[in-house]
Amino acid sequence: MELWYTEEHTENVRFSIKIKKQLYSANSPYQKIDVFDSEEFGRFFTLDGLMMVTEKDEFIYHDMIVHVPMAAKPDTKKVLVIGGGDGGTVRELTRYSSIEEIHMVEIDKMVVDVCREFLPQTALKLDDPRVSLYFEDGLKFVRSRQNEYDLIIVDSTDPFGPGEGLFTKEFYGNCFKALSEEGILVNQHESPYYQSYANAMKRAHKRIKEYFPNCRVYQAHIPTYPSGHWLFGFASKKVDPILDLDAEKWNSLGIETKYYNTELHKGSFALPNYVKEMIEYENK
Amino acid sequence: MELWYTEEHTENVRFSIKIKKQLYSANSPYQKIDVFDSEEFGRFFTLDGLMMVTEKDEFIYHDMIVHVPMAAKPDTKKVLVIGGGDGGTVRELTRYSSIEEIHMVEIDKMVVDVCREFLPQTALKLDDPRVSLYFEDGLKFVRSRQNEYDLIIVDSTDPFGPGEGLFTKEFYGNCFKALSEEGILVNQHESPYYQSYANAMKRAHKRIKEYFPNCRVYQAHIPTYPSGHWLFGFASKKVDPILDLDAEKWNSLGIETKYYNTELHKGSFALPNYVKEMIEYENK
Repeated sequence: MELWYTEEHTENVRFSIKIKKQLYSANSPYQKIDVFDSEEFGRFFTLDGLMMVTEKDEFIYHDMIVHVPMAAKPDTKKVLVIGGGDGGTVRELTRYSSIEEIHMVEIDKMVVDVCREFLPQTALKLDDPRVSLYFEDGLKFVRSRQNEYDLIIVDSTDPFGPGEGLFTKEFYGNCFKALSEEGILVNQHESPYYQSYANAMKRAHKRIKEYFPNCRVYQAHIPTYPSGHWLFGFASKKVDPILDLDAEKWNSLGIETKYYNTELHKGSFALPNYVKEMIEYENK
Repeated sequence: MELWYTEEHTENVRFSIKIKKQLYSANSPYQKIDVFDSEEFGRFFTLDGLMMVTEKDEFIYHDMIVHVPMAAKPDTKKVLVIGGGDGGTVRELTRYSSIEEIHMVEIDKMVVDVCREFLPQTALKLDDPRVSLYFEDGLKFVRSRQNEYDLIIVDSTDPFGPGEGLFTKEFYGNCFKALSEEGILVNQHESPYYQSYANAMKRAHKRIKEYFPNCRVYQAHIPTYPSGHWLFGFASKKVDPILDLDAEKWNSLGIETKYYNTELHKGSFALPNYVKEMIEYENK
């Protein structure tokens, strides 16, 4: 008997992975959590049946969501991560000795517990002394924060389900307020390729633009996400992700990465025409 | 009853598309040819069960295989296309009024006939007066050519089956000989993500490097190809794809594209570290 995990990328497109074993399955108060083991991708976990993290390629997503803003503003000291229960984003952040404090706000404690048990590859730095975990609603958490963070990373699920609030105008406005004068907001920005994802992406981008003077979008190849063409939003009060990139300085930090490098950093902001048109974006 | 087309990207990974109707199926002397119609991707055709072209996203592949070399060397006059039976590569080439002659060498006449009938979107320029079609083995065709083409585009299937000869040392050596003094060779270069494709990619790259002084690799997001992370090889006798790019000149041609633009052109040569390591590549 063969076991396959299948995700519907649209109602007409399916992506399937052959499973060696299902390691875990439970319903948290927020969502269904499953962990599988597979030949091709190693262990991976899904929320409500949607792919979150695989051992094989989580490095791509986590490199891009962390090192792009960190290379653009290397003096970042205090960071807020919203979501990111698998710990991969925190793991990459802890590699910067210059970072003094990391607050991670994850609504679903069970995700963290499950990842600590089954995905030590991503969760291993959640006990770093600079990290404080808050099991709360990120939307509420940022409401009370003001001028506090140099960087906010929204490492959320898609805007269907518990992640929905993290794509609202109210949320982005509160992020703006919670950021310091030179603060940066980075968020997972969905994909331009399939309609429902593209719609979410366009909405998110439009809302972020209402608050932040600099709104850029960058892209990466993430084969286990729908279409494999994934976007990240880079919004800031002052910092320009390309003009303010000090490649020499970042390279001098000696952070070894499997995906990110400073040339790719620059290249990732050059979007295809059909994506530019969706969001009225200019490559620079 | 639901009909699904399924491609095995590896023995452990499947990509499936819901089909409205199968429009065609036959065995040519070289391969099995199928044409389907689908909600998500429009019409698409497969060779030996592997995805070749979909109406929805063929623009990505064809933009990148044609406009990158053309923007790097806009005075290109004579072009050889090897493979490319769907006609999409020729269609993009015919948009340059400066191109005087296009030779297309496709081993399988049935592919061209089928695409003319079912995929006019890509095949419609095969009757352009500048185009000569040769239904021959590309490997043999280039053997007798010398200092003749400014650009050779290898728009082949994967190196498993009839496309195999187009990934050999002998073939690349003959391409070098068939190119003019400032000639460029571009080829579809497989994907770095899944092992068997990555192996083919590494082999091809190594062989091309034995002949060409400048060997670069660039990437695009092609969601219907395995992993969605697709590479192209750019090899030349003299031309540098970034230093010799005259963005202003290309933009002045007024060629409208849905994927390609000159900023993305530059960005596409910045590869992730794990790909750079596979082929001993330096981003520039």
